Amino acid sequence: MPYVNIKVTREGVTREQKAELIAGVTDLLTRVLQKNPALTHVVIDEVDLDNWGLGGLTVTEFRRGKP
Amino acid sequence: MPYVNIKVTREGVTREQKAELIAGVTDLLTRVLQKNPALTHVVIDEVDLDNWGLGGLTVTEFRRGKP
Amino acid sequence: MPYVNIKVTREGVTREQKAELIAGVTDLLTRVLQKNPALTHVVIDEVDLDNWGLGGLTVTEFRRGKP
Amino acid sequence: MPYVNIKVTREGVTREQKAELIAGVTDLLTRVLQKNPALTHVVIDEVDLDNWGLGGLTVTEFRRGKP
Amino acid sequence: MPYVNIKVTREGVTREQKAELIAGVTDLLTRVLQKNPALTHVVIDEVDLDNWGLGGLTVTEFRRGKP
Amino acid sequence: MPYVNIKVTREGVTREQKAELIAGVTDLLTRVLQKNPALTHVVIDEVDLDNWGLGGLTVTEFRRGKP
Repeated sequence: MPYVNIKVTREGVTREQKAELIAGVTDLLTRVLQKNPALTHVVIDEVDLDNWGLGGLTVTEFRRGKP
Repeated sequence: MPYVNIKVTREGVTREQKAELIAGVTDLLTRVLQKNPALTHVVIDEVDLDNWGLGGLTVTEFRRGKP
Repeated sequence: MPYVNIKVTREGVTREQKAELIAGVTDLLTRVLQKNPALTHVVIDEVDLDNWGLGGLTVTEFRRGKP
Repeated sequence: MPYVNIKVTREGVTREQKAELIAGVTDLLTRVLQKNPALTHVVIDEVDLDNWGLGGLTVTEFRRGKP
Repeated sequence: MPYVNIKVTREGVTREQKAELIAGVTDLLTRVLQKNPALTHVVIDEVDLDNWGLGGLTVTEFRRGKP
Repeated sequence: MPYVNIKVTREGVTREQKAELIAGVTDLLTRVLQKNPALTHVVIDEVDLDNWGLGGLTVTEFRRGKP
């Protein structure tokens, strides 16, 4: 019955990479906890760089090396 | 004081259906737990078919009956 | 494929009330969006009164009518 | 190691306001709990007015003063 | 900068299994998206069987094969 | 209408610190976005050290400086 939510920054994650994340995390839960893959849900959220903060800065600022 | 988050796949949920979900879940919490509707918040997230996984596949693949 | 998360304050919600919330919200999603109940997951989180804030106060303070 | 998720309605929050929210909440966690800002993540979600419910209405309806 | 939230039913997940889930999902994000493990946060929530619903039933009822 | 969720490790956060976090984040949203404090909800989740992962390790291991 697991539910997994993966949040990453929105920067060109491809359909293939999403499929790989979903397959990988479902497999991990089956292997470690014997969870039923048919009942395992995974939701990937892609977050704009202006909407993710780290170290008190938006990722946009963080990447520019501000201040 | 309830907060409810509903995640569904993004496939043409109409404004009327959203209003119906919000009214229904708020009513349910009032009826079952006597919660104050004025303090009940509901957030609906619509998730792209490539971003939702089930059975180790994206819903896009799942619907195609892959493999 | 819906996933629903219901957050309420932890104050004696009974097993019967939880079952009623789960049945009610699953039924709502079936009725409004024709979702498959077998794929509908609902998670109820009960939150301590000191850990929920409203109007800038914890619910504990809020209920006491502080200040 | 904190993780903070801020959900607000999507109505023209500017890049500067997002930066201010991220700086403010990170500073708050450093000040109150001595958390390391370098490990503090903040994610801001902007939610469409039709997807947020309050008092059993969507915010769109709520703002119109319905009924 | 990923943040991952894993929700499973609370039924004796061991400390070793939690460590394995955390290592596995962090490794997956490094491998598929080249994410920095030092910035990858994983939070595991264990949910009581009465608080998780599937098919309109609590998992407690579901496991008993109700009705 | 904001909803804020703050996740921190469970290690003796006091009732006073929780009240300070709730007051601070509500004040921030009022100041930056003119949000109504009466409609601002904050939920604090305290997460066991074995259930939070960073750098591929549980915080328990991470703090011990493993490996």
